[in-house]
Amino acid sequence: MENLLAHRSIRVYKNKPVDQQLINEILEAGIRASNTGNMQVYSIVISTLPELIERLAPCHFNQPASKAPVQLTFCVDFNRFTKWCKQRKAEPSYDNFLAFFTGATDALLAAQNVCIAAESKGLGICYLGTTVYNAEKIIEILELPTGVVPIVTLVMGYPDEQPGLTDRLPLEAVVHNETYHDYSEDAINRLYAEKESSSLTKELLEINKKETLAQIFTDNRYSKKLFVDVSRTYLEVLKKQGFMNQ
Amino acid sequence: MENLLAHRSIRVYKNKPVDQQLINEILEAGIRASNTGNMQVYSIVISTLPELIERLAPCHFNQPASKAPVQLTFCVDFNRFTKWCKQRKAEPSYDNFLAFFTGATDALLAAQNVCIAAESKGLGICYLGTTVYNAEKIIEILELPTGVVPIVTLVMGYPDEQPGLTDRLPLEAVVHNETYHDYSEDAINRLYAEKESSSLTKELLEINKKETLAQIFTDNRYSKKLFVDVSRTYLEVLKKQGFMNQ
Repeated sequence: MENLLAHRSIRVYKNKPVDQQLINEILEAGIRASNTGNMQVYSIVISTLPELIERLAPCHFNQPASKAPVQLTFCVDFNRFTKWCKQRKAEPSYDNFLAFFTGATDALLAAQNVCIAAESKGLGICYLGTTVYNAEKIIEILELPTGVVPIVTLVMGYPDEQPGLTDRLPLEAVVHNETYHDYSEDAINRLYAEKESSSLTKELLEINKKETLAQIFTDNRYSKKLFVDVSRTYLEVLKKQGFMNQ
Repeated sequence: MENLLAHRSIRVYKNKPVDQQLINEILEAGIRASNTGNMQVYSIVISTLPELIERLAPCHFNQPASKAPVQLTFCVDFNRFTKWCKQRKAEPSYDNFLAFFTGATDALLAAQNVCIAAESKGLGICYLGTTVYNAEKIIEILELPTGVVPIVTLVMGYPDEQPGLTDRLPLEAVVHNETYHDYSEDAINRLYAEKESSSLTKELLEINKKETLAQIFTDNRYSKKLFVDVSRTYLEVLKKQGFMNQ
């Protein structure tokens, strides 16, 4: 519990490798996460070779965390399960969107278990959501076959920074009792007030020369062009890797 | 770490409510999970009213776990974020597939944190993947507006059973070193050998009158008809809730 509450993403790591035995212990805890029908339809590609990390870094826009010594690319994987079915006189039909989403769900639950196990062992972690943005290039570098799609990268290593806790919206902003209760204009103002008045927000507004924090999201960080482009390319990747036959 | 390794899904619960204060503590730990750009684009609907649980149960095929006293439906939620943007002179464009997948990723990482927090407090949990199968009905019951899609349900309560640990494939089956290494016929045979020779598998083969375990998946549990039907209906739901404009 204390570990969960103390989570910080770490973006700068010591130049110190992580012992293979420790990585395995962490992964053993990772794969204990719940998964759909115990099919385990995901794979984890661990990359630690410097030349491989260097090739992957541009896929993550060379952000500082992309230089971490251990990189785990979590993938939907129906390749292994489908091969098993075919070798066992069974007819698999996992080339559709539900198969993709099932694998993605399982992979993400395992990823979060890995994150918590790693932190409990004194390692730092950071998720790279950019995996989805440049999935095609990652597929090429990691040699992912049909039936396999990368969905998120979790990097880890020994922390070389001690960032503070990031803010969260108050619990009532994300929780609904019994059924969904839509937000009034007043409720939005109230729930975002603390975030908007923080010193971090003031700093961001100055750096980005924007009037509101929301504009930093819509204009700079998560623009329409980015979201439309990635939506299209990622759906193309799902098709190419064999997950859009429904 | 020990908690992660000891995880079991609990499907039968005591008829004992869970204290609201404890639920809140668990959720506070849940929302500390990493999320994309700290947008927190998800919502959690907590249902505990018996009449609501009764209405939701058929969406989960009335499986035993669907009777649990606390039901958390995790949803992608760009409704709140979009409303905030509009109130702040920003132009949001989160009506596309990347928005959906971003919210789903954040929601699933939070869900797994909730799971771990709940187990550390002596509660049992079970994921219901059926949320995706009957998303449209759940949207109606929980009154989810445009921009909100249910992706998974996590039920919890005080355990009234003590199931054994379920098996997992050996770690080497799901982990790839540096790049992906495809599976030979021999590798598949070796990696699935333990699972296939278990007493649970023998029991399942007898009950289902099947020759191989794989056939139980392809013919009974996760059939082509189910996967194609749900792929189509869930993509329709994504469209209807406003996530397919790219």
